[in-house]
Amino acid sequence: MMRFRARVYVMLKQTVLDPQGSAVLRALGDLGYDGIHDVRIGKIVDLSVQAEDPDEARAKVEEIAKRLLANPVLEEFSVFLEPDAAQGV
Amino acid sequence: MMRFRARVYVMLKQTVLDPQGSAVLRALGDLGYDGIHDVRIGKIVDLSVQAEDPDEARAKVEEIAKRLLANPVLEEFSVFLEPDAAQGV
Repeated sequence: MMRFRARVYVMLKQTVLDPQGSAVLRALGDLGYDGIHDVRIGKIVDLSVQAEDPDEARAKVEEIAKRLLANPVLEEFSVFLEPDAAQGV
Repeated sequence: MMRFRARVYVMLKQTVLDPQGSAVLRALGDLGYDGIHDVRIGKIVDLSVQAEDPDEARAKVEEIAKRLLANPVLEEFSVFLEPDAAQGV
């Protein structure tokens, strides 16, 4: 068993309105920042996962992202993986 | 003026407890996933920023991150920047 560090990025799909992003954009305007556009908010989920190899680790994390971390109707996700240097093997 | 696409990652500092991450970890256990550890949740903020050059764009985004996007007591942030291909110049 090896241990991997995974990072999942979850963003709203481009076609989905992002009220949280609009609120940040408005707040930036109120603070006097101009020249800012297209603010979109997303989530990061970092986790450590034990698996036999990188392929198994990635499959596990993608399944978790689909089932629990992202809403497939509104959101899209991407998974990045690296060996867990601190706690490998 | 050029237009840049910036991505800000905001994570809780390692020393700060992450109850949202603990909740996800527990939910994963309930769903039958084992071998998962150290779940940490963070935020992504994507935005477009107009500036004369990359240095000015980065400075602007870092100031925004400090003032509005991250809580410097509990959180740390990092900024990534690229030219906005879709709407350059």
